[in-house]
Amino acid sequence: MAVEIKELTSRSENYSQWYNDLVIKADLAENSAVRGCMVIKPYGYAIWEKIQRQLDDMFKETGHVNAYFPLFIPKSFLSKEADHVEGFAKECAVVTHYRLKNDPNGRGVVVDPEARLEEELIVRPTSETIIWNTYKNWIQSYRDLPVLCNQWANVVRWEMRTRLFLRTSEFLWQEGHTAHATKEEAIEETERMLHVYAEFAEKYMAVPVLKGLKSANERFAGALETYCIEALMQDGKALQAGTSHFLGQNFAKAFDVQFLDKDGKRDYVWATSWGVSTRLMGALIMAHSDDNGLVLPPKLAPYQVVIVPIYKTDEQLAAIDEKVAGLTARLKAMGISFKYDNTTNKKPGWKFAEYELKGVPVRLAIGARDMENNTVEIARRDTLTKETISFDGIDNHIKSLLDDIQSNIFKKALDFRTSKTFSVDTYDEFKEKIEEGGFIMAHWDGTPETEEKIKEETKASIRCIPLEGNKTPGVCMVTGKPSAGRVVFARAY
Amino acid sequence: MAVEIKELTSRSENYSQWYNDLVIKADLAENSAVRGCMVIKPYGYAIWEKIQRQLDDMFKETGHVNAYFPLFIPKSFLSKEADHVEGFAKECAVVTHYRLKNDPNGRGVVVDPEARLEEELIVRPTSETIIWNTYKNWIQSYRDLPVLCNQWANVVRWEMRTRLFLRTSEFLWQEGHTAHATKEEAIEETERMLHVYAEFAEKYMAVPVLKGLKSANERFAGALETYCIEALMQDGKALQAGTSHFLGQNFAKAFDVQFLDKDGKRDYVWATSWGVSTRLMGALIMAHSDDNGLVLPPKLAPYQVVIVPIYKTDEQLAAIDEKVAGLTARLKAMGISFKYDNTTNKKPGWKFAEYELKGVPVRLAIGARDMENNTVEIARRDTLTKETISFDGIDNHIKSLLDDIQSNIFKKALDFRTSKTFSVDTYDEFKEKIEEGGFIMAHWDGTPETEEKIKEETKASIRCIPLEGNKTPGVCMVTGKPSAGRVVFARAY
Repeated sequence: MAVEIKELTSRSENYSQWYNDLVIKADLAENSAVRGCMVIKPYGYAIWEKIQRQLDDMFKETGHVNAYFPLFIPKSFLSKEADHVEGFAKECAVVTHYRLKNDPNGRGVVVDPEARLEEELIVRPTSETIIWNTYKNWIQSYRDLPVLCNQWANVVRWEMRTRLFLRTSEFLWQEGHTAHATKEEAIEETERMLHVYAEFAEKYMAVPVLKGLKSANERFAGALETYCIEALMQDGKALQAGTSHFLGQNFAKAFDVQFLDKDGKRDYVWATSWGVSTRLMGALIMAHSDDNGLVLPPKLAPYQVVIVPIYKTDEQLAAIDEKVAGLTARLKAMGISFKYDNTTNKKPGWKFAEYELKGVPVRLAIGARDMENNTVEIARRDTLTKETISFDGIDNHIKSLLDDIQSNIFKKALDFRTSKTFSVDTYDEFKEKIEEGGFIMAHWDGTPETEEKIKEETKASIRCIPLEGNKTPGVCMVTGKPSAGRVVFARAY
Repeated sequence: MAVEIKELTSRSENYSQWYNDLVIKADLAENSAVRGCMVIKPYGYAIWEKIQRQLDDMFKETGHVNAYFPLFIPKSFLSKEADHVEGFAKECAVVTHYRLKNDPNGRGVVVDPEARLEEELIVRPTSETIIWNTYKNWIQSYRDLPVLCNQWANVVRWEMRTRLFLRTSEFLWQEGHTAHATKEEAIEETERMLHVYAEFAEKYMAVPVLKGLKSANERFAGALETYCIEALMQDGKALQAGTSHFLGQNFAKAFDVQFLDKDGKRDYVWATSWGVSTRLMGALIMAHSDDNGLVLPPKLAPYQVVIVPIYKTDEQLAAIDEKVAGLTARLKAMGISFKYDNTTNKKPGWKFAEYELKGVPVRLAIGARDMENNTVEIARRDTLTKETISFDGIDNHIKSLLDDIQSNIFKKALDFRTSKTFSVDTYDEFKEKIEEGGFIMAHWDGTPETEEKIKEETKASIRCIPLEGNKTPGVCMVTGKPSAGRVVFARAY
């Protein structure tokens, strides 16, 4: 019986198709019957749960609590903050009716025309408005501040061109919404959460990120400042992986949220909001995976180790089962997750290909000769290398191997980014270089006009004005006007 | 300065008002600007997170995985399963448009009439239809079975009369949807999950529940059998706390989900679904709380212990801080959650009342005399008793006290239920007894007509046909026709 392999398009052949194939074939997600909405399949959702759990722990360590706010937003709320309504995309799901009825002309149901809402409700595309309308009742005095809430929720933005995880009409995310007594404290919070996101991306996703500020054009609608983390994908395109917004007093003013300070003076409350979404799944998949399938960082893999027995007789399998039971008990005690796949209806070759496709970091195979010699074959997914080693001490070997894989894939991604980061001084050079992909550090005069001209002519946008690194003044590559320091350009997802 | 107390209506005065006051004043939830949708506040959400975490662990232990399916359901899907469309409430939020636009006649936004959906989308009131439409692509052979998925999600049912947690237009829940090769296996799954729910209710919520079957009238639309757990509240009304449905092949047929069995024969797949929701919060609140506020079972309390220092000088506080630091380190190591409230802007009396209102199971108070004597005052929320004990060994004392509180509040609820469970043989007696509240065990002839007559005349419904206990045949209290055994009646939430 031939080994049945799920073929992937290769990255060099068609990167975009490779991504789509991978998401489907590794059982991460699929399109649903509802245009633009995805089904997140159990294997994909298990990764998302690990992301959630880790981020949630980090939010709580930094003093945040979870809460839940309504799915629906009254239409009029969206008009209250002028920049928000002006800048925010209008592609939203609108609820106009609240009842169906049996179709009088046949089977099935129709919308009951008599059950029309007085005011339409918008399925939340983001929750600043409904939350600040709530905070109005929570905040009277400086004693009520800060409010440090986060919510895990689904949101809907009616995207016309969707891609699994990267851009879907419904997606899952977390949105933090905080309220502060002072501007300084709010800015500190905005930056704190940016650093939490960056730490998560680098330490858990093994994805190096640039931290920076968005240009005015790219700011969140209603924000005074948007901070972001930007990652580089293997095709040389940038992906915005998280944003943290300093909202000033805009939403407090729009929803009249004032507080009495220690001196009895009234002032508007200062706000931040910050979020990451299932888009992180897209970044995770694209940053590390190869033509054989997913490559998952051990810290986010649904199971870190898969063990495959190779046997001819039931007796051989029983002996392997017994030997493996001892190992898995030790792995469990060490907090290492595993799957022992001793199912009988698939061949080892099929299993090897399947777990490679699914990006399981470490694979053990144990056959008859291993049983004789007290050895095991151990393979690592990131390098695709394998070796046969003694079964004794295998648990500690796995533990250090997982750490090694985690740091190796981060290093690989970092080396890739370094090799694809260029400094460029002329616009001609920029136009040439941008075709190769990567981050391009160039001088810009700080105006939206120049930014738009560059975007129009090269499809590259300013990903961020970096927070770190030395800022050497120079002249704009397009206009020759003064520039305070290089900013990061790239084509982006 | 007088101690500011948040007054609750007493249960005897107005039970319904007591519940509403409690939910608001204990900071559990509040109504939002969107009719019927609640805001779950951080303290309430922290309890929900504990419920979620525990149930999720129990689902995973029984072999289930999580996944995520779309928020929206195409209107036509609701018509595919005949009983489902017929029986399911039609009060649903309907999305008809996908874009807003700036109001040409002024500020603000209006719905763009050109962005009308071809087919309306329904915000999921439950997900059987969209999930079975998905399972169609997942299941071809017996090798693909069983599928054991759960989803944590928000759902919307447009309720006209809402009450926080008990009945809201949007609520949070989990819905398990499983697919099986045989009828027997599906029934086994349905019952397994009922037992998981019952175990959770009794061991974690400390709420005793009756396990039973719903009568045909009360079955989920599309189910062949609905199992439920029923709890009794302090006002003598029943509350349905969870349901588990055996769906037969109804949804498989509606969505054409067939599989090849081991013998190569095609058959429709067998289904179950099961769910509990934020309604459990209502049950938890109503089952144990008293006129002073919440009483929380230690296993679900956001923090199990609160420690309040009583001091006059900064030096005294510093000494208490130091002593408490040693204790909290030990509590943390023992997995006991706590809050040390040494904030200076509230008096101890205010704190005592506040934590009593919030149902913290154990309260410690440490004052100057305690510091001298190496003692501490320890108070338990369930009995409102307190004593002064030695500080030595306090950590182990707390641990056993928490266990004691957990079993005591369960026992109290069980004793209450026992005292409010009556066997009744005549309809006159039934009518009299039902006014007192409680579970009434009576004979019924098994017909929907008799059931409806009883409901109309007494407002009591059949809560369940109990799974446990001896079934002695008898005659229906209304019609005198034969009855296979007593069923459980009550007025219900």
